[in-house]
Amino acid sequence: MQFSRGHAILTRSLAQSRTLARPAFKQRHLIRRTLASQPSGESTVTPPPNFAKQSKWRGFLQILGRATLITIFGGAGAFYYITQQERNPGHQLPADPEKKTVVVLGSGWGATSLLKTLDTTEYNVVVISPKNFFLFTPLLPSVAVGTLNPRSIIQPTRYITRHKTRAVSVIEADAQEVDPINKTVTFTDSSEIQGDVSSTTISYDYLVFAVGAEVQTFGIPGVKENACFMKELADAERMQRQFMDCIETAAFPGQSTEEIDRLLHMVVVGGGPTGIELSGELHDFLEDDLKSWYPELAGKVRITLVEALPSVLPMFSKQLIDYTESTFKESKIDIMTKTMVKEVKEKSVMLQLPDKSVVEVPCGMVVWAAGNKGRKVTQDLMAKIPAAQTNKRGITVDDYLRMDGTNGTIFAIGDCTATSYAPTAQVASQQGAYLARMLTQMAKKDLYDKRLASLEISATSAASEEDKKKIADEAEATKRQLNKFKLRPFHYSHQGSLAYIGSDKAIADLPFMNGNFASGGVATYLFWRSAYLSTLFSLRNRTLVATDWLKTRLFGRDVSRE
Amino acid sequence: MQFSRGHAILTRSLAQSRTLARPAFKQRHLIRRTLASQPSGESTVTPPPNFAKQSKWRGFLQILGRATLITIFGGAGAFYYITQQERNPGHQLPADPEKKTVVVLGSGWGATSLLKTLDTTEYNVVVISPKNFFLFTPLLPSVAVGTLNPRSIIQPTRYITRHKTRAVSVIEADAQEVDPINKTVTFTDSSEIQGDVSSTTISYDYLVFAVGAEVQTFGIPGVKENACFMKELADAERMQRQFMDCIETAAFPGQSTEEIDRLLHMVVVGGGPTGIELSGELHDFLEDDLKSWYPELAGKVRITLVEALPSVLPMFSKQLIDYTESTFKESKIDIMTKTMVKEVKEKSVMLQLPDKSVVEVPCGMVVWAAGNKGRKVTQDLMAKIPAAQTNKRGITVDDYLRMDGTNGTIFAIGDCTATSYAPTAQVASQQGAYLARMLTQMAKKDLYDKRLASLEISATSAASEEDKKKIADEAEATKRQLNKFKLRPFHYSHQGSLAYIGSDKAIADLPFMNGNFASGGVATYLFWRSAYLSTLFSLRNRTLVATDWLKTRLFGRDVSRE
Repeated sequence: MQFSRGHAILTRSLAQSRTLARPAFKQRHLIRRTLASQPSGESTVTPPPNFAKQSKWRGFLQILGRATLITIFGGAGAFYYITQQERNPGHQLPADPEKKTVVVLGSGWGATSLLKTLDTTEYNVVVISPKNFFLFTPLLPSVAVGTLNPRSIIQPTRYITRHKTRAVSVIEADAQEVDPINKTVTFTDSSEIQGDVSSTTISYDYLVFAVGAEVQTFGIPGVKENACFMKELADAERMQRQFMDCIETAAFPGQSTEEIDRLLHMVVVGGGPTGIELSGELHDFLEDDLKSWYPELAGKVRITLVEALPSVLPMFSKQLIDYTESTFKESKIDIMTKTMVKEVKEKSVMLQLPDKSVVEVPCGMVVWAAGNKGRKVTQDLMAKIPAAQTNKRGITVDDYLRMDGTNGTIFAIGDCTATSYAPTAQVASQQGAYLARMLTQMAKKDLYDKRLASLEISATSAASEEDKKKIADEAEATKRQLNKFKLRPFHYSHQGSLAYIGSDKAIADLPFMNGNFASGGVATYLFWRSAYLSTLFSLRNRTLVATDWLKTRLFGRDVSRE
Repeated sequence: MQFSRGHAILTRSLAQSRTLARPAFKQRHLIRRTLASQPSGESTVTPPPNFAKQSKWRGFLQILGRATLITIFGGAGAFYYITQQERNPGHQLPADPEKKTVVVLGSGWGATSLLKTLDTTEYNVVVISPKNFFLFTPLLPSVAVGTLNPRSIIQPTRYITRHKTRAVSVIEADAQEVDPINKTVTFTDSSEIQGDVSSTTISYDYLVFAVGAEVQTFGIPGVKENACFMKELADAERMQRQFMDCIETAAFPGQSTEEIDRLLHMVVVGGGPTGIELSGELHDFLEDDLKSWYPELAGKVRITLVEALPSVLPMFSKQLIDYTESTFKESKIDIMTKTMVKEVKEKSVMLQLPDKSVVEVPCGMVVWAAGNKGRKVTQDLMAKIPAAQTNKRGITVDDYLRMDGTNGTIFAIGDCTATSYAPTAQVASQQGAYLARMLTQMAKKDLYDKRLASLEISATSAASEEDKKKIADEAEATKRQLNKFKLRPFHYSHQGSLAYIGSDKAIADLPFMNGNFASGGVATYLFWRSAYLSTLFSLRNRTLVATDWLKTRLFGRDVSRE
């Protein structure tokens, strides 16, 4: 560019100096000379009008170009460096019998955020969970329709624990029994392949009980047998397979119209965020993909959302509920509120309408996204502390998340507890982080206690008065340090509620000042995406989810029935 | 840049013209004037030496920068356009009762390459397969260890058929019976969810039999029950789960050393490309990932490859076999040739060594990658044509891939046939493409035949001599056209053999001139990758596989046990 411009300038000057047809380089050389020996004189020739503009534009292009270059290479370099750091964890301190042992039950929101925050220097940490990974539950509905790849929203627990100062042992097992008196946990190998040893008992100093909850079917007949759940990764994959099954079976030659309508009727039970997001995602799948690949069927798919309460999304503000309902109307998703499921049959669902009449609705698939209930291990543990643990809903804890009746040896967080907070990922992860900080504090406190004890011992055996004095002073200092340790109670700060409602629209209810900021639409959808991306625990998951979103935009969802 | 350089040039000229401290713009303006009114004169001032070099470098940077910009935006645009084209197939001609019906059984290499090449204008095409997608089998081992995501190597059959001129109906069903006399196929719905209609019979004019083969266990006890296969996508996913199961169970506290060694011993049966690539991938998983996340176990994992023949990879040339064996030695993968599997037990495998002695080898997992055998539907069909179909290995076809004894109504391609060619993807896909071209030819021929027939009819009813003459001439012309149709027999052109052997090394045996070009190593690995990428049927799969490879480089493989 430089050159060509130099050239441009020059041709004009040469035109007058009658020096023509020289090779470009010489001409450039000439220019410099001419410039060099140039007294500022007046001139009649003016530059072409578009000249300055053109060069500005070029300048801009050049800057943009170089900026791009730098961003790309710099960014890629930094990105690569970080990923390699994450991939290659360094050496860890070995387990130390001197230190206290913290046993964590679970690998969900509570346990994982605890492990992320916890300083393991002063503890031997053991994690016991039937899954050896963390599952980012809010994105399950996206996996169920193939917007995301299952492995993009899971993160092996070891990816976190291997980066801790002291080695953390992660055990893939089902916790069978907790003994709060002798402070032990008994667990069994949860995998298909069993070794010689498949059950064992270990003891703890502190137990973090974060086993979450299981699906609540309210004893409604047929739910377990005939409905898909939306709690574990396997559930989402099963639903995807069943959905494609319904489509393919409806496409089978000679299927009657009624049967096609039956097979293509999807019933989602539960008007909470999961049910809403799932309905929205199903609708997107329909619009974006089925229309292209199953044009003869796409128009016949119907989605019905069933909710027992008078309205969906109780945690959201009125106008957002209305917005959701109107969006669903446009998307032809039927919302049936004040409607209760009485039974789930193989090819239909029995619904009790607001007028108490019961109707049988034929359908191809029922997805159950309603209700949590405590796991057996939780109920067993509570039964062992009958005096303190009386709440049917779950474990009762004090303001410091200590389980009542275990004098501070067991902490309970997340969905297995009965608190004033909703059983959400947000609450669980804040509790986990709080507990991690508290445990670190307690470790520090213990160190000072030990020091004080040893000082008192040496005080008795101190020879001279000066020694006694010195020791006494040090003891004083340590006591002062100890008094500084004030455990602050757990306080939950609500960051707001978000939900995707399909057709590239989302709703958000965010606490703002003392009031509340509610928004819905496409912009909110972008916010929803960025919020979820930032909530994901690792750069790895962020990248995987982001690329999956891009893939879906470009190639659509996969309609193969695996 | 422009400006700053202009400035640079100028400051010198100004230095002499004693005109100082003017704002940049005016200075630039001045330059142009000076240039404009400049007679070429000599000068004593020379530019600083690094000047030209600097500007060259800048020029380069600018060009590079802009090139990058253009490539990025242009490339992205084109890419997006193509993906959207693929995603949104247009309108298709409806099925036409006048046209002949071609029924294709299968959705593997043969069937898919046929569907890609076939011109459906002159045919009603029906595809029947238990899978509604094509599976890129050569990359299964990569899926089994998590290098690739399962959905990256599959392509829904509809993604191909929906882009055909005339609508193709794709039915997800198991072909139960073929009746070569009445030319009908009976099939049943293969999905879990069944509709009212789940079995039906349709008739064909031409049948393309491309059902492939199933795993051959040679009746060895325990193989079906206790070994993983490597044929379908589900097999790969199952193997991945089992492998992680073995690791996690070995990590269970209190496991004895013998038991850990047992659990971490992986036995791969079959020294063909699948067995070799799987062993290589397992070794990579070990090196790249397990060492980071299971440091205490990674060193204890052992891989053993068992092959009944005297050498692995019989289709490769001697030096490549040696190269593979030496690479495996470095990778600590044991190769046991001339060794036969006698039984697969739950926790061990019985091996007959070359000296005929039988030993029991404890192991955590056995992967069976040996042998193909005909499916039941194939055997049944052959049994119906006992005279012509006598080959135990599979269907006998003539040089035009027509099944013997069906006078040209059934064509058989791929692994279900018994030909002189190896049962490879390469052969099947070439056969599919050949058959597609042949069917198109035959359709054209039929059109001419019809024309000729109608001409002969009109000839009889022709009034004047001139008419007769004209018709006769036209008939002549048509006959000449007809004689042009010469069906060329199928000819297989071997493109070479490729295999990945782990540690970023691959081997390639490529036909070159009349000889053979053998290469192995890291460069070959890159060739292997590009070759596989280009063999993938769609831009979608190419992109997905490429990004998966990149992901694995960056983040490693996932160690979650789903």
